[in-house]
Amino acid sequence: MSFINNLWQKVLHPTKPWGGVEGGIAIIGGGSWATAIAKIVVGRTGHIGWYMRRSDRIAEFKRLGHNPAYLTTLNFDVSQISFYADLNAVARKYDTLIFVTPSPYLKNHLAKLTADISGKTIVTAVKGIVPDEDMVVSEYFHTRYNVPQDHILCIGGPSHAEEVAMDRLTYLTIGCTAEKTAEAFANVLRSDYVRVETSEDIMGIEYAAVLKNVYAICAGICNGLRYGDNFMAVLLTNCVREMDRYLTAVSPAKRNICDSAYLGDLTVTCYSNFSRNRTFGTMIGRGYSVKSAQLEMKMVAEGYYGTKCMMELNKQAKVDMPILNTVYDILYRQVNPAKAILTLTEKLT
Amino acid sequence: MSFINNLWQKVLHPTKPWGGVEGGIAIIGGGSWATAIAKIVVGRTGHIGWYMRRSDRIAEFKRLGHNPAYLTTLNFDVSQISFYADLNAVARKYDTLIFVTPSPYLKNHLAKLTADISGKTIVTAVKGIVPDEDMVVSEYFHTRYNVPQDHILCIGGPSHAEEVAMDRLTYLTIGCTAEKTAEAFANVLRSDYVRVETSEDIMGIEYAAVLKNVYAICAGICNGLRYGDNFMAVLLTNCVREMDRYLTAVSPAKRNICDSAYLGDLTVTCYSNFSRNRTFGTMIGRGYSVKSAQLEMKMVAEGYYGTKCMMELNKQAKVDMPILNTVYDILYRQVNPAKAILTLTEKLT
Repeated sequence: MSFINNLWQKVLHPTKPWGGVEGGIAIIGGGSWATAIAKIVVGRTGHIGWYMRRSDRIAEFKRLGHNPAYLTTLNFDVSQISFYADLNAVARKYDTLIFVTPSPYLKNHLAKLTADISGKTIVTAVKGIVPDEDMVVSEYFHTRYNVPQDHILCIGGPSHAEEVAMDRLTYLTIGCTAEKTAEAFANVLRSDYVRVETSEDIMGIEYAAVLKNVYAICAGICNGLRYGDNFMAVLLTNCVREMDRYLTAVSPAKRNICDSAYLGDLTVTCYSNFSRNRTFGTMIGRGYSVKSAQLEMKMVAEGYYGTKCMMELNKQAKVDMPILNTVYDILYRQVNPAKAILTLTEKLT
Repeated sequence: MSFINNLWQKVLHPTKPWGGVEGGIAIIGGGSWATAIAKIVVGRTGHIGWYMRRSDRIAEFKRLGHNPAYLTTLNFDVSQISFYADLNAVARKYDTLIFVTPSPYLKNHLAKLTADISGKTIVTAVKGIVPDEDMVVSEYFHTRYNVPQDHILCIGGPSHAEEVAMDRLTYLTIGCTAEKTAEAFANVLRSDYVRVETSEDIMGIEYAAVLKNVYAICAGICNGLRYGDNFMAVLLTNCVREMDRYLTAVSPAKRNICDSAYLGDLTVTCYSNFSRNRTFGTMIGRGYSVKSAQLEMKMVAEGYYGTKCMMELNKQAKVDMPILNTVYDILYRQVNPAKAILTLTEKLT
C-alpha cells in the first residue's frame, strides 16, 4: 500500500514523471486484455514490466513494436517496457503485479512461482474462477499466497480490450476491501479515455465477471437459434436478476446490481460483437458441436470453464439459477440447444 | 371487468370460439404497434373492432388484406375485423378499447369522442405522456373520462412490433391496479409467441415506457458520435438507475427495476435496430439538425415529445436526471451534441 500511495503521489504530481523500475507495476499475461491494460498503465507511468510465457513472442513484440498476436494495431514504445519470460524475476522486481491470464491457465503460470509474493500488491483482471479450487482469484491469492486482503484489487467493468485499444471511452471499476488502496490504484488508470470508479465489493465484481461470460454464451446460443431483440432484452433482465440472487446469497454486500461493474459488464458481453463468449454461443446455437466451436475459435471462451465452475460453486449456495443450469446442460450434458432454450423460456419473466 | 372475466372464460374454453361483436375488443390506432396488437388479439378471439382515422387506409386494408402503411408483410383475415373510421361508433359498440396511437395525437383522436366511455375497460399501449396534461395515459382516462382505475390497464414490455409480426417470442407485461383484471386480460394475449406477466405497477410501467424512448435517443446520439460498446453499456446502466430514481420518487411501489417491463423495455429500445428513437438519435449524433432528422424519419420518434413532457413533470419531482437534461438540451436548446454528451460523460458512473 505504501508503494501505491507513493505512486498515487507521483500521479498527483505529474511534473515528477514515473520512471521507477524498482517498485513499479508489472503485467502478467500476453492476451488482448493484458495488452489493453498495459497500454493504460504505461500511458500513465511511462514504464511497465511485462511477463509473457513465450520468449519468441517477446522477441517479436520488440521487433514489431506491438503484440504480435493480439491488438496488433496498437503500437508501444518498447523502451518503456521491460519484458520477462521468467515469472520469478518479474515478481521479485515489481511491487504491483497485475494478473491478466485466462483463468484456466492461471495455476499453470503460478506453478512456476517460487518468489514470495505475500508482500506484493496483487491486481486481478482475470475473469474467471481458479479451476479445481472453486475460488475467485482474489480469494486464491489471499489463501494460497498469504497476500493480505487490503493488498488485493480487481479490475471490473464493461471493457472490451479492442475498444480500449481504439481510445474509446471506457469506465472501469476497481474493487478492493480497502477504499484508499482502490482509489490510489484508480488514479493510476485514469486518463482521457478511461474513467474509474471504486468499490469495496471485490468478490461481487469478480463473480459478476465470471457469470456474465456464462450469460453471454446463453445470449449467443439464443442469437444462433434466431431469437430476436425482444427476447434478448428479456433474457438480459433475467440474467441480471439471477446474478443478483447469486451475489446476494454468497456475498451479501451493499451493492446496486445496476452499477456498471455488474449490469454494464453483463450488457456489453451479451450484446457486443467483440464478445468471444457470445460468438462461441452463437456457433453452438447455429448447430456447431461444443468441440468444433472450440476448434474454430482462436481465443478461449472463458464462459465455457466458468459454467462448470459456477455449477460446482452453486452446489453449496443452492441459488435458483435456471440460466446457468441451461448453459451447463447444453455445454456439458449434450442437451439439444433448441430444446434446452425452449424449456428455459418457460422459466423467464 | 365482468366482460373481461367473461372473455377470460371463453379463452379458457376454446371450444366456444370467441365470435362476439357486442362486448368485444377494439383497437384504436393504425400504426405498427397497433397492427401487432391487432394480430395478437384477433389470433385469440377471432374478432376485433379496429378504428383508423383515415377511411382510405381502411379501404386499402380491406383490398390488400394487410395494413397498407405498417407491417405490410403481415396478412390478416379481414372477415375477422370490423373496421371503423368513426371513433364514437367503435366506442359504443365495444366494451374494451385498446388505445395504440402516438401520444402526441391521442388528444386529437379523443376530441371527437362524444360517447360515454366511463363504463368501458380501457387498455393503453400508448407509450407517452398526454401533451399539455403532464399525465400518463391511464391517469388521463381516469381523471378526464371517469374510467375507474381498476378498469384501466396498460401493455408494457420489450416489444418491437416488427418482431411480433414475425412470431418472434415476446414477453409483455399487463399493468393494472386490480390483479385479477390484469390476469384476465393477460390470458387474452397469451399464445405460442407471446408470454404475459402481470403487475400492479401500471404508472411505473407507463413512465418507464416514456423514459426509455428518451434514453434511446441518447443512446442513438452517442452511437452517432461514435461512442463504442463499452460506453453504451455504461450509459444503459446509468439510464436504468435514473429511471429507478424517478419512479421511486413519483410512484414508490414495490418494484424490481430489473424486470422486463423496465430494464427489458429500456434495453431493447436502446440496442435494437428496430428502434426509431435510437435511429432518430443516431441522426442527431451524426450531425443532422433536429428538424431535418424529423423530416427524414417516416415515423414519429415518441421520445422527442417524451423528453419535453418529462422535463415538465420533473419540475415537480426534482429528481436528479442528468441524461434527461442532456437530451433536452440537445433537442430543445440547440446545445451541440458532442459537447453535451462529453459533459454528460463526467456525470456517469
